[in-house]
Amino acid sequence: MPADRSQAPGPPTISEVAAEAGVGRATAARTLGGYGYVSPELRERVLSAAEKLGYRANALARSMSTGVSHTLGVIVADIGNPFFAGVVRGICDTSRARGFDTIVLSTYENLEEEIAATNVLIDKRVDGVIIASAAVGRGEVAHIKAAMDRVPVVLVDRAVAALDLDTVVIDNRDAAREAVEMLITAGHRRIGFVWGPPVAKPPATRRELLAQASRNLWTDGERLRGYLDALDDARIPFDPELVMAGRKTEERATAEVARMLAIPDRITAVFCTETDAVTGALRALRAAGLSYPRDIALIGFDDSAWAAVMEPPLTMIAQPVHELGAKAAQVLLDTLEGAEPGRETHTLRSRLIVRASVSAPPAS
Amino acid sequence: MPADRSQAPGPPTISEVAAEAGVGRATAARTLGGYGYVSPELRERVLSAAEKLGYRANALARSMSTGVSHTLGVIVADIGNPFFAGVVRGICDTSRARGFDTIVLSTYENLEEEIAATNVLIDKRVDGVIIASAAVGRGEVAHIKAAMDRVPVVLVDRAVAALDLDTVVIDNRDAAREAVEMLITAGHRRIGFVWGPPVAKPPATRRELLAQASRNLWTDGERLRGYLDALDDARIPFDPELVMAGRKTEERATAEVARMLAIPDRITAVFCTETDAVTGALRALRAAGLSYPRDIALIGFDDSAWAAVMEPPLTMIAQPVHELGAKAAQVLLDTLEGAEPGRETHTLRSRLIVRASVSAPPAS
Repeated sequence: MPADRSQAPGPPTISEVAAEAGVGRATAARTLGGYGYVSPELRERVLSAAEKLGYRANALARSMSTGVSHTLGVIVADIGNPFFAGVVRGICDTSRARGFDTIVLSTYENLEEEIAATNVLIDKRVDGVIIASAAVGRGEVAHIKAAMDRVPVVLVDRAVAALDLDTVVIDNRDAAREAVEMLITAGHRRIGFVWGPPVAKPPATRRELLAQASRNLWTDGERLRGYLDALDDARIPFDPELVMAGRKTEERATAEVARMLAIPDRITAVFCTETDAVTGALRALRAAGLSYPRDIALIGFDDSAWAAVMEPPLTMIAQPVHELGAKAAQVLLDTLEGAEPGRETHTLRSRLIVRASVSAPPAS
Repeated sequence: MPADRSQAPGPPTISEVAAEAGVGRATAARTLGGYGYVSPELRERVLSAAEKLGYRANALARSMSTGVSHTLGVIVADIGNPFFAGVVRGICDTSRARGFDTIVLSTYENLEEEIAATNVLIDKRVDGVIIASAAVGRGEVAHIKAAMDRVPVVLVDRAVAALDLDTVVIDNRDAAREAVEMLITAGHRRIGFVWGPPVAKPPATRRELLAQASRNLWTDGERLRGYLDALDDARIPFDPELVMAGRKTEERATAEVARMLAIPDRITAVFCTETDAVTGALRALRAAGLSYPRDIALIGFDDSAWAAVMEPPLTMIAQPVHELGAKAAQVLLDTLEGAEPGRETHTLRSRLIVRASVSAPPAS
């Protein structure tokens, strides 16, 4: 039954809108309040009725009830990676201590999901955003720039060349260099790099490899540069055959390490840049009947409880994951509380945890 | 400079409110729009000015621009646990395929954080909520009931006795029973249970143990019941000395397995209910100079890439983590799309992945 507005003394109410639309009051309230689910058809009817009656909600009252959201939004590339789970923990602990809640979205390395996630956070009116972005090129950062127009944004884990804003990362290049130097000091010269840029065609030259790396994630590129730094310092010639090509999956790492073990002048050491690369490499060693550190040396990212209980325990790079998240939250919260937004890159130091997966290469 | 409203032709604008408050237009827009951070003092000034001028935002326009949020909210006990990361992935994949975004909050097993997280999700107007709750007793569920008054809620991973609503879990009791049966079939009768209820004083009797379990997480209690089921079926007497007591940490698991290895009639097998319990147990074995499966058998939750590359590889229970999340999202989305909200418990089956960490006990 349409509401008769001719007798109404004040502005239309939600009940009147509901009656005009022929829906329940709860449905009208949800539609007009913007919370909860309402089917598109009913929503349309409520909005038409509201327009017809000239309904206006009291936004001021709502703003006073919800207030400042005191919520940080976090976008990570893959919450299933224990590295990012640790970073999120650092963000949550710091923001909680300063009175902010934290909501997290995971993009699974998909740029379109990242754009959608950014929109969700702005739509949900978070006070600031921390992103570990999958964006690389200048053409992929429009969503981050749009977010920056609304709220402060801090990058975590991954620098993005096209963006000039506060960034909190670890010393990927130095960490990789130190690990590969340790392998070289132990006597290794044939050192596999797992994994490289995710390309279909393996790079034939060092220049091509670096060009591919620069079109991919900053983190991966830095780790590759650290590997090359260590080779250069020791005057070990670069061999493209020792760099993994293809998609960055555990299965692929297994296949590529198997390939590097099968070539005539085989690898005697392997450097892995991710946990899945480490477990992939270990599968290849077992399949080839090889043991570490006797037959092959191994160092990888990231240290974990498992790496410590392997027999022998693995020498691993430990990233300061909690500190990384805590620092990103601190930089963001300082900005929210009045500090000038910076354009600084904060670099935290990782640590090489020396255990027992590196010894001299087998006598050939 | 206060705005002079006497000449104003229409309703007051944001710019007029800003002028009245003596703040910038952006600050007024953020305050009145309810997004972004504004200091409490400036907010107060803007709201006073808005009230004085009779400012009303057009909520209808906002409702049309933001629309239904098409966002699911997820609260997990610990996003740092790969189990929950896998569940979240299942939720995200399913909700994405059906046009919904997913935002996640992690409570780190803290009930107060869970209450805050629930409020955040309602405040952010998600369309539905999935919770792996830390709540146990009737007195701990008021926040979930309050959420249920606003949006559909589905429980995942953990049933809560005081709540009668759609719940998606795995067959914890059967999974534990099957694993312990495998140990018994291999000849073990002294089987450690790591970990039990997190209590200061170890339980002295079976009844006390079960009473403590019922005051703790449903999942842990179910796994304990499965352990006891298997012992009962084999007529193996229950020995409270073989149940871990104390906080559920890797360090504590190490200390408790060391204790169980040091008693005269020592354990010959250990059943671990969490990944951290497994790595804790493995540390204790190494410290005691024992190898599995020769000196001791081991089965644990949850299977992982690491468990598969251990030498020997570990026999583990694989929970259907992705399916668990996907099912919870499906049940919630079906409700949002008009299905009657159920009060059903959906139980998914786990799998025992048999590898090489179980053999007969050492001859005594």
